Order: sequence, then structure tokens, then C-alpha cells
Amino acid sequence: MSRGLFITLEGGEGAGKSTNLVFIRQWLHREGREVVVTREPGGTELGERARDILLHSKQLHISPESEMLLMFAARSEHIIKVIRPALAAGKVVLCDRFTDATYAYQGGGRGLAPERIAVIENWVQGELRPDLTLLFDIPVEAGRERAGQRSEPDRFEREENDFFTRIRKTYLDRAASEPARMRIIDASRSLEQVERQIVAVLQEFVHGQ
Amino acid sequence: MSRGLFITLEGGEGAGKSTNLVFIRQWLHREGREVVVTREPGGTELGERARDILLHSKQLHISPESEMLLMFAARSEHIIKVIRPALAAGKVVLCDRFTDATYAYQGGGRGLAPERIAVIENWVQGELRPDLTLLFDIPVEAGRERAGQRSEPDRFEREENDFFTRIRKTYLDRAASEPARMRIIDASRSLEQVERQIVAVLQEFVHGQ
Repeated sequence: MSRGLFITLEGGEGAGKSTNLVFIRQWLHREGREVVVTREPGGTELGERARDILLHSKQLHISPESEMLLMFAARSEHIIKVIRPALAAGKVVLCDRFTDATYAYQGGGRGLAPERIAVIENWVQGELRPDLTLLFDIPVEAGRERAGQRSEPDRFEREENDFFTRIRKTYLDRAASEPARMRIIDASRSLEQVERQIVAVLQEFVHGQ
Repeated sequence: MSRGLFITLEGGEGAGKSTNLVFIRQWLHREGREVVVTREPGGTELGERARDILLHSKQLHISPESEMLLMFAARSEHIIKVIRPALAAGKVVLCDRFTDATYAYQGGGRGLAPERIAVIENWVQGELRPDLTLLFDIPVEAGRERAGQRSEPDRFEREENDFFTRIRKTYLDRAASEPARMRIIDASRSLEQVERQIVAVLQEFVHGQ
């Protein structure tokens, strides 16, 4: 049996995570891997209810601390019910956003200290960290322009550019400090060029295991 | 201006917290104190939504960890929006359940280690602890009999007697280890006798400040 692999996709608004997730899943399938696709917040009944509160409560003004704890309540459930069982069964877990997003959004975006986030990360996850993280990076303006072509903005998408600039910076800083795990994909390029970057990273990662 | 006071009511099912809360509020009013009555889970918009998930999701099987983090997400909000501002304004905050309930229900009841709960308690509350806690204690069977006369049982109330026995034991152990803060009220006695116990504790506490 193959070893389970935990791959996460990260990035700001309009970076193309969803589109590329389909491509990555298909690539892994062709490699003969069984893939579980999931997302945060979400992935379980509690997670989807938390997602609903976090993204779609237009009038909800909650503190960064509460927002983060709610994220981790959903994450804890997600890990116990979905991620750990799939990894234990040798599958690839492909997750649209995970804890790097908490550091980026609630840390960089909302101003929570990373040391405080780390306490809860360790409490909830123990030793669990992604094996590989693809960071889809795109300048804030360009990303928002793309995202703006989609439907109604959610609670996060209604924030100002400064908010997203801090998020992008946090993501890039994290990638710089963990280059082996976090690989930057230049998402401002054409779809074909983005896919070529993804394949290069996956080839090296999956065959290097 | 009077110093703010943080008073919590704790106890298992059917211990009479709600009935006695009204009596306590009136007593404090007569002492000339401004009282803010609140409850957990609840007390804020996020709290009420968490309450709804925790108490009324009949098919929801969530892990003790997630349940606890969801409680603390709501508690964090409650502290920031309701409890700290009221205490800072010199009011009495009278709260129906607080963190002792987390130790009792998610700790004693669901088996989470108290040391793990303490990490999150410190993260969320900092130094904030109740000044006084009234523990309404009643044998499990008697309490459930009383509670059973009420409406449809919630997600917690559908648990077995063992669960409530562990909760009661945790509450009593905590009261034994913090006798100055946690005062046991024998809730199995007549309403008049219960009120007499409450007044004795409040007299001593409020006038001893």
C-alpha cells in the first residue's frame, strides 16, 4: 500500500485553486493514487455549518479569536473524521485550504499573533502537518479582479485590499521559511503555464517519495 | 462605582439554575447592583448559533475536541462582547454556566483531559475567572426526573445516567479544590431552603467584598 499523502492548496482570492484542484486530482489518479478531495472550512457536517457561519453571515462581526477557534473546531472534526482515516488507508488527501490559511487570514489578515495560533494548531493537530502545500500566488489586484467575475462576495471577500496584501505577504513569508513543504505556483500566468508548474512540483514530490 | 462581579451558576440537569437565577438577580437588584444576565452557550449572535449546533443537532456526532473548541469560540466572543465590558462598567455579570461546565461536560462527561482544557481556557480567558460560582447540586436521578418534566430533551439531555454521574463528580471535585470560589447549594431541598442557602452565600460574598 502507498503511504498516505497530505497535500494542501493555498492562496488568496482568484488564484485559481478550485480550477487547478481538478487538474491535480486527475494527475494523481493517472499516477494510480486514490484521492480524497476536501476543503476548509467544510468537509464535515460541523465544518459546513461553521463555513456557513464564517462566510455567509453578512452582519456577523466576530473577534479574530472566535473566528480562529471556530475554524479549528471545524478543523479538529475534519482531521478526526476525514483526513486521518484517509491517510491511514494510504490515500492522497487533497485539501482546499488548511492551517496555512489560518496564519494568513486570521494571523496576517486579522492580526492574531502567530505564536497564539501555534498553540491551538499543536493542540488540535498534534504532529499532523501537510506533506506538500501548493501556494497559488497572484498579485492582490489581479486576483480580486478574477474573483470579482464570480458570484456574490462572501464575508472575507468584502474586505479591503490591505487585508489581502497582508494575507499574501504572510503566505509568501511562510513559503520562504518552509521551502521544502510549501511550493509557490505563479498563478498570474496562463492556465497551461500554471499546469506545467504544478506537474513539475508533483513529479518531483510524488516520485521523490 | 462598585467593582464588577462575575458570578456563575453551575449544575447538572434539573438542578434549578434557571429558577434560582431569577431569585439571585432580584436579590442583587435590591442590593442596588446593576445585573447583566447571560448564559452559555449563547449570549451573543455567534454563541446562540453555536448553542443551536451543540444542543439541537440531533444527528450531529462531533468529537469532544470539536465540541469543546466550539464552546470556547462562543465563549471568547461572549467574554469580549458581553462579560468584560459589563465588568469594566462595574456591573454584576450573572452567567448561567461557564468554564466549569466545560470541565464537567467535555472533561468529566466526554473524557477530555483537564490539562488539555486548561490550555484553551488560558488562551481564551487570560486571567478572567468567576469571582463566585454557585454549584446547584442534586443527585443525578432526582435532577433528571425534574428535567424530564420539561420539554423535548436536547443533545446532552439524551445521554445516559453514567454521563451525568461523571459530570456531577467533576463539579463536586472542582468545588472541593476551590472552596472559596465555588459554593455548593444543596438543590435537592425545598425551594425555600435553597433560597436560604443562596442568600447566606450572597450575603457573605457581597458584603465581604
